[in-house]
Amino acid sequence: MISKLAGWDDTIVALATPPGVGAIGVIRLSGSRAITIVNGLFPSKNLQDQPSHTLYVGFLKEGENILDEAVVSIFKNPKSYTGEDVVEISCHGSPYVQQRVIDACIRNGARLAKPGEFTQRAFLNGKLDLAQAEAVADLIASNTAASQKAALHTIRGGFSANLSVLRERLIRFSALIELELDFSQEDVEFADRKKFYELINELTESTNQLVDSFSLGNVIKNGVSVAIIGKPNSGKSTLLNSLLNENRAIVSAIPGTTRDTIEELINIDGIIFRLIDTAGIRQQSTDVIEKAGMERSLEKMKQADLVLYLFDAAEGKAVIQTQKLEFERQQLNYLLVANKIDEVGEQFARDKFGDMGKVIFISAKQHLYTDVLKERMVDTVLQGRVQAENTIITNARHFHALKEVQKSLADIKEGLDNKLPGDLLALDIRHCLHYLGEITGEITNEDQLDYIFSKFCIGK
Amino acid sequence: MISKLAGWDDTIVALATPPGVGAIGVIRLSGSRAITIVNGLFPSKNLQDQPSHTLYVGFLKEGENILDEAVVSIFKNPKSYTGEDVVEISCHGSPYVQQRVIDACIRNGARLAKPGEFTQRAFLNGKLDLAQAEAVADLIASNTAASQKAALHTIRGGFSANLSVLRERLIRFSALIELELDFSQEDVEFADRKKFYELINELTESTNQLVDSFSLGNVIKNGVSVAIIGKPNSGKSTLLNSLLNENRAIVSAIPGTTRDTIEELINIDGIIFRLIDTAGIRQQSTDVIEKAGMERSLEKMKQADLVLYLFDAAEGKAVIQTQKLEFERQQLNYLLVANKIDEVGEQFARDKFGDMGKVIFISAKQHLYTDVLKERMVDTVLQGRVQAENTIITNARHFHALKEVQKSLADIKEGLDNKLPGDLLALDIRHCLHYLGEITGEITNEDQLDYIFSKFCIGK
Repeated sequence: MISKLAGWDDTIVALATPPGVGAIGVIRLSGSRAITIVNGLFPSKNLQDQPSHTLYVGFLKEGENILDEAVVSIFKNPKSYTGEDVVEISCHGSPYVQQRVIDACIRNGARLAKPGEFTQRAFLNGKLDLAQAEAVADLIASNTAASQKAALHTIRGGFSANLSVLRERLIRFSALIELELDFSQEDVEFADRKKFYELINELTESTNQLVDSFSLGNVIKNGVSVAIIGKPNSGKSTLLNSLLNENRAIVSAIPGTTRDTIEELINIDGIIFRLIDTAGIRQQSTDVIEKAGMERSLEKMKQADLVLYLFDAAEGKAVIQTQKLEFERQQLNYLLVANKIDEVGEQFARDKFGDMGKVIFISAKQHLYTDVLKERMVDTVLQGRVQAENTIITNARHFHALKEVQKSLADIKEGLDNKLPGDLLALDIRHCLHYLGEITGEITNEDQLDYIFSKFCIGK
Repeated sequence: MISKLAGWDDTIVALATPPGVGAIGVIRLSGSRAITIVNGLFPSKNLQDQPSHTLYVGFLKEGENILDEAVVSIFKNPKSYTGEDVVEISCHGSPYVQQRVIDACIRNGARLAKPGEFTQRAFLNGKLDLAQAEAVADLIASNTAASQKAALHTIRGGFSANLSVLRERLIRFSALIELELDFSQEDVEFADRKKFYELINELTESTNQLVDSFSLGNVIKNGVSVAIIGKPNSGKSTLLNSLLNENRAIVSAIPGTTRDTIEELINIDGIIFRLIDTAGIRQQSTDVIEKAGMERSLEKMKQADLVLYLFDAAEGKAVIQTQKLEFERQQLNYLLVANKIDEVGEQFARDKFGDMGKVIFISAKQHLYTDVLKERMVDTVLQGRVQAENTIITNARHFHALKEVQKSLADIKEGLDNKLPGDLLALDIRHCLHYLGEITGEITNEDQLDYIFSKFCIGK
């Protein structure tokens, strides 16, 4: 399926644990000479003769120089992460010591691994398909239960299984169509067009589901940006503090996209909500708002995946109606939040705004119904999608390949509608198979692979 | 020797690798329930029945929730770092995933380890003595060949072996003296006073060597602070840049002790030289020097372990002579560096200053003889001490205990000189043995242990 990459017979070495001082650091080698190279530094045991999946404690030495006391783990080909011989050296967590051990491995014949090269070898040796390999990077970057789960689902082969079902069924039909081409003079139809039509419909539906899941997958991977907007004194900073304080699972505050904005991250039910420009909300005096006013709010709204429009429940209904129509005109994803219901009375507020839809009634100050607001925020993002065991696309590359699959399925369908001859149909089918194969790496090229794995960290 | 510490039957858990994102992270458990607890999260294998020093790959699950795909290593009591059952979980390098795995271990009965608690258990179980345990922390912090070597020498028991030789010989005599006490009415001398005198002399010499090695040990562990001083235009910044640029092994620039000074670190022959206030040297205009002038130079000189006095080789000899006498009066460790010999001519400079001693002739600009300067800097620090396989004390606690040993040896000697009775001698001997035992941890107390291990990182 792929030509062996240049240098792929080398034995590679890299630090697998994060850089810095810790109790231990793990250096990983993979390749046909991994065991020999480490054994050259670890004279107390003949590692070559030991069984796979065993550990040895001893001193690492380069000549007479002792480098460290370490634990050496052996994973023999093919029962390893990469499918090659793998040795892991667990040494003391001094960056200096680790560097010396890596240097010694290099002097003994290893070379420094490129980013993602361990996982790339796992892929090339058929231990993982490409989608699984990419999910390894996603798992490492995961910071919520949802992102962890989506990545693990793909690593375990859930996504690849979905695709291979689609692909196999299409290949079977493709074979029949290609057979027709061999008999093209005789005008036979081995492939039942009606059944084929049904298949294409099913495939289209499955593909649509996967493509649709990307909006959720993207949310899971990258979080949801939320703009809290509203007039001065509607209680924006109170709501913000309330959301931040109630939430035990605050992730951290990270610098925003512009120098003067800060994003506060909160984790609600495993989804990261990035409350944008909240520093601004906290600091802005009413004066500033009046001036900068709608301009800033509008910009924030456009950036956001979700707009929370906060208003005082004492506010007139007509104003809110107008605002609501504006949100709809701009096709924004919004929620209307009637605040200060403790002041005007809950029933009064509900009677006034209850028929508008998309209104949540809260008191940010009294922490009243803020849990309902959070629930609605999550619902709005998930939009009724069942997470369960369904595959969720989180990778933009997969998304774009699936969009191409969608397109070629539509072409096939159109071809069937227009009773196109078999050779033209076959072309569209091959196109479709190509993009399905690109996702799992059955079809790929070196440049693409290099690009994908270059985004990994070194040591993975 | 020591009572079991409270909570020391618990099974402890901690992240052993540095925090942050990496390819993998290692979580370590130690204690009688370590294997059971991990097995509760690792259903695919009965870990309890597996031999020590083996590895298993599988999914970590808490109930139905998959936490990660991981490699589990088993080290069975007593063949482990702590001497207890130890399990290491090598999981994906996502801080989020690691935290979830640690949380799951805690829910299953482990508790979070205190700083240094793994090594503390190793000490309490007799896997390491106290000096060795402390050297583990030194090894992790090591950043040069010399500091790595000194720490490894101690971990391997080199220092402890020295001490136990001293201790055993003293104990043998002590036993004889104590025996005399039982027969004190009869005025016998089981312990040959002459041989004892010889022993005390030998012990004193060994102890002196160890105590003396601390000045070198301190240099190895903490580096040597160097002040480059000299009149304006003597070429200080040129020399600094020359030292920094010639040296491939620049460690890094770290903030100095005051906000406006920076230390540049260079590694010469495995010794870290900290060039203090060099930012100042680089930035200061000649004006500033004239004003702030000698005051700042004097302060820098007092802070420094080594003073490099840089002067223009065209300078008059009398001025340098005066400066030299001043350094000697202040008992500073200094080198005189005659710069710009390319301008006045090497032979001219050597003829003029050659008889003064402690003068190195260089041209910082032409990179002439800067290697000689570096060699002399190292020589000055090592002062002829042979590093070889000798034990070097790097730990201040050991140094202070050895100073007490020195003191009590002097007391014993004085006692012998004054023909003190056996019971008084025995007291001094016990005193001496006490301090020797404190170093390796034969004699210690819980507070002291807690203090020592609290300086370790968590996970070690």
